[in-house]
Amino acid sequence: MKSKKSQFEIFRQKTHIIIYGTNTFAGRLFDLILLGLIFLSVLLVMLETVAGFDIKYHDQLIFLEWVITIFFSIEYILRIISINKPFRYILSFYGIIDLIAILPMYLSLFFLDTHMFVIIRALRLLRLFKIMNHPHFSGQSQQLRKSLIASRGKIVAFMYFVLISCILIGSLMYVVEGEESGFTSIPISIYWCIVTLTTVGFGDITPITPLGQFIASLVMIMGYGIIAVPTGIVTAEIARSEYKRGRESKRHHCMNCGKDDHSEESKFCYNCGDELDEHS
Amino acid sequence: MKSKKSQFEIFRQKTHIIIYGTNTFAGRLFDLILLGLIFLSVLLVMLETVAGFDIKYHDQLIFLEWVITIFFSIEYILRIISINKPFRYILSFYGIIDLIAILPMYLSLFFLDTHMFVIIRALRLLRLFKIMNHPHFSGQSQQLRKSLIASRGKIVAFMYFVLISCILIGSLMYVVEGEESGFTSIPISIYWCIVTLTTVGFGDITPITPLGQFIASLVMIMGYGIIAVPTGIVTAEIARSEYKRGRESKRHHCMNCGKDDHSEESKFCYNCGDELDEHS
Amino acid sequence: MKSKKSQFEIFRQKTHIIIYGTNTFAGRLFDLILLGLIFLSVLLVMLETVAGFDIKYHDQLIFLEWVITIFFSIEYILRIISINKPFRYILSFYGIIDLIAILPMYLSLFFLDTHMFVIIRALRLLRLFKIMNHPHFSGQSQQLRKSLIASRGKIVAFMYFVLISCILIGSLMYVVEGEESGFTSIPISIYWCIVTLTTVGFGDITPITPLGQFIASLVMIMGYGIIAVPTGIVTAEIARSEYKRGRESKRHHCMNCGKDDHSEESKFCYNCGDELDEHS
Amino acid sequence: MKSKKSQFEIFRQKTHIIIYGTNTFAGRLFDLILLGLIFLSVLLVMLETVAGFDIKYHDQLIFLEWVITIFFSIEYILRIISINKPFRYILSFYGIIDLIAILPMYLSLFFLDTHMFVIIRALRLLRLFKIMNHPHFSGQSQQLRKSLIASRGKIVAFMYFVLISCILIGSLMYVVEGEESGFTSIPISIYWCIVTLTTVGFGDITPITPLGQFIASLVMIMGYGIIAVPTGIVTAEIARSEYKRGRESKRHHCMNCGKDDHSEESKFCYNCGDELDEHS
Repeated sequence: MKSKKSQFEIFRQKTHIIIYGTNTFAGRLFDLILLGLIFLSVLLVMLETVAGFDIKYHDQLIFLEWVITIFFSIEYILRIISINKPFRYILSFYGIIDLIAILPMYLSLFFLDTHMFVIIRALRLLRLFKIMNHPHFSGQSQQLRKSLIASRGKIVAFMYFVLISCILIGSLMYVVEGEESGFTSIPISIYWCIVTLTTVGFGDITPITPLGQFIASLVMIMGYGIIAVPTGIVTAEIARSEYKRGRESKRHHCMNCGKDDHSEESKFCYNCGDELDEHS
Repeated sequence: MKSKKSQFEIFRQKTHIIIYGTNTFAGRLFDLILLGLIFLSVLLVMLETVAGFDIKYHDQLIFLEWVITIFFSIEYILRIISINKPFRYILSFYGIIDLIAILPMYLSLFFLDTHMFVIIRALRLLRLFKIMNHPHFSGQSQQLRKSLIASRGKIVAFMYFVLISCILIGSLMYVVEGEESGFTSIPISIYWCIVTLTTVGFGDITPITPLGQFIASLVMIMGYGIIAVPTGIVTAEIARSEYKRGRESKRHHCMNCGKDDHSEESKFCYNCGDELDEHS
Repeated sequence: MKSKKSQFEIFRQKTHIIIYGTNTFAGRLFDLILLGLIFLSVLLVMLETVAGFDIKYHDQLIFLEWVITIFFSIEYILRIISINKPFRYILSFYGIIDLIAILPMYLSLFFLDTHMFVIIRALRLLRLFKIMNHPHFSGQSQQLRKSLIASRGKIVAFMYFVLISCILIGSLMYVVEGEESGFTSIPISIYWCIVTLTTVGFGDITPITPLGQFIASLVMIMGYGIIAVPTGIVTAEIARSEYKRGRESKRHHCMNCGKDDHSEESKFCYNCGDELDEHS
Repeated sequence: MKSKKSQFEIFRQKTHIIIYGTNTFAGRLFDLILLGLIFLSVLLVMLETVAGFDIKYHDQLIFLEWVITIFFSIEYILRIISINKPFRYILSFYGIIDLIAILPMYLSLFFLDTHMFVIIRALRLLRLFKIMNHPHFSGQSQQLRKSLIASRGKIVAFMYFVLISCILIGSLMYVVEGEESGFTSIPISIYWCIVTLTTVGFGDITPITPLGQFIASLVMIMGYGIIAVPTGIVTAEIARSEYKRGRESKRHHCMNCGKDDHSEESKFCYNCGDELDEHS
């Protein structure tokens, strides 16, 4: 009995190394296959909605989808088995994503209502989030995210200003242009204002009266000018964080008192006067 | 008599603490309710203009609107009562906004003309400005505003250049394209040029002749290139102000000779050798 | 005879002070009137092309236009008379602009052909360039222009890259989409590519085939990404020039050897060892 | 025999100087002619596709095209003859481009199928790449390219994030808007999302339902905000590389102790006190 349990324990450890680790060949291979299946799965979801393609290859799509679902199901079970605190994984963000990502096909056996069906199957796209947990990507955009988080406060303040402006200008345009020009309600006018201020400019609703066109011109020039603000915020933040990183890499460490921000040319610690080691 | 007056005085002081203060629980609660009602009010103004919604829930909308108006009316009166110099508040920017924000519903009892009605009710959106006076927001976007004000001169010079360009190019397009393509007058052509230069591109007016399309291409590339200018101005300003702020926070002041730009870790003044105070 | 000549000489000098100077009250007044007339003139040119407006106020427009033309004519003659080297002024850029700006109305007496007429009258818009010579504006955007000129080389290299890309992608789209989608020739396809890459997006020509839409997506993401390049160039340049200006203002001047780039805290010249004056 | 071979050798050397060199008058003239012919060739390809123009000047276009093709053919042969390692050139990127650039006209003699014909002739546009090898341009955009390559990693991470967002939002819009609004499949919806997020905004597909318009608004504001990211990355990189270049150009090298970061005006090494060489 004991030997059987330890055999299972060995299997668990091996599985853990393959699924969670990236140092062994099997671990890297597993990660690659997972990545490929995620992309294939996303491609399948997209192609299913292309009418001509779905009619022609419906059976193949369903078959491939089942293959992927079963693979992800096995992966999900193995992840639970091989981890020490399974509930911590199950209730984590990526654990829930993993679960939702395998459900759609099983659910599609029960729900036959077409619209519900479409929504459930679209859930499979959440598999894209699995990539964020993938060792290949998780470490990558670290510094970028830091800069964005550092300048988050200012960006939110800016977004808030943009929104207030859009509500006020949108309402003004609703009064000026009226329903004949397509500005049928204030929410629609705000939608138009966002479309214009962000320089997207669909053209589905456009001002017709001279006054409306004049206000629109002001909005556009304003939008063209204030795009500088978020850019400025993020740029300053990235420049600052890079400057800091650059300085940190140059820091010299004093073996005596621990101070580590001496200039590159310093020969003596400014704090305790101890001579600095050349290669510290 | 005296006791009654002092009772009123106590009521005034309590009210002042709740309305103008943010340190007590009641003060914070009041601020939160005010914020919620402002947003609800804005939502109501927007929903009223959505035809389908207004027909279905007309009475409820009017009822809610009256509740909000009465709340703001009481708030307005309490603000006047509880402040020491009431006229200073009444004639201030936010005082006028507060007044205008409560008038529409009362005025709507007298004005029954539909178009006038729409404009008056839209005035309620000015309540959004009340938020700027709200303690939660007033302190927030300080630094952002400073950077924008500091680079205002250059941005105006840039905007002026954009406007001159748009007048000249717009007139050129009017001559080149003519009325058949939708360029019916110079103001319309200038409007088109602004739409194009700011990369909005509605598509309601587009050049048709080869020469017109060639000029349009130049305008677009120009617009794509010169967007760099406001961005550059604001970015440089934000970077500069952050760099300055960063340095200021690190400055230590020497009590002996007055030098105040020692590094954060310095223990002795680099100028006179006097020991620096820890908390200076 | 001599007294008469000197009287004319006095008139010339007074005129010179008023027209070219900005220190006297009369000089500033003249500049303001000139500025007002330039803007009025531009407004007139624009309003003339608005069909409804021109029919209603045709005579008033023509009258005002003649007033402005005669004022500018007198100004042109006075400028020639009051300057010492008249031909230098006449042949300068602003001299030619001044001349062209007064010709249209006189020419309109001879040319009655409608289309020619429109073009000649549009020449009056060149009066906008007169503003650039105006003391109020000429000094303003100095630093901005310097930054742009300094980064001109890189911007041209970038524009060149954009153009090459547009020719190649435009041709590719012509082959992929063909004439049914509106991509009727390579120049039109290049025009479409510029419209798309610069994120203008008129929507007058849009890809219909899946492959075309895929390429369009790549172009858009590319355009979205490479807008960073001119912005980065200009921003870096502005930041650099401001940093330099900031440093220059701090420079200390050595009275002994003339070196003027000592750091703010230096007490002795690094070049000759002479003590630096506190207030230099 | 030997004299003949050496005569050929002299011809080879002379040709090499003209084709590959830029120091002699003949070398510069050759480069200019080549540049002119490349631009003329690109212009011809473009004009051929303009229906009206091609019908009118078909023979002239074909004649000019043959002249250019023959010139490029001779240039190609001379390049092979005059270089020491011909196969290295033939198999290089620019060698292959040079070959492809002359083939279309010869191939057009054999392929008479119209569509194939169009594609083959479009290959002539690859001649644009020849410019990159042109001495006038090859040295130009060096620093620009370096900055882009240095920030490539972050830009790719950013692009990846944009793509993931577009797939998720596109699918959401497909479910929300449905086929009646033009969102006929997920790939089309993703195409719409890219068009919107990059602020291009063609307007060929636009949301109609209130919920769809609300999501679209969020996408637009998001797109407006995150354009800051690539800009920030590239700007910080350009600023950094310029700062570095600026510092490097000022570095003086001390022959005694090896320190190489003296200011431009320093006469003595700050480290060892040795006099600095004027031209180091």
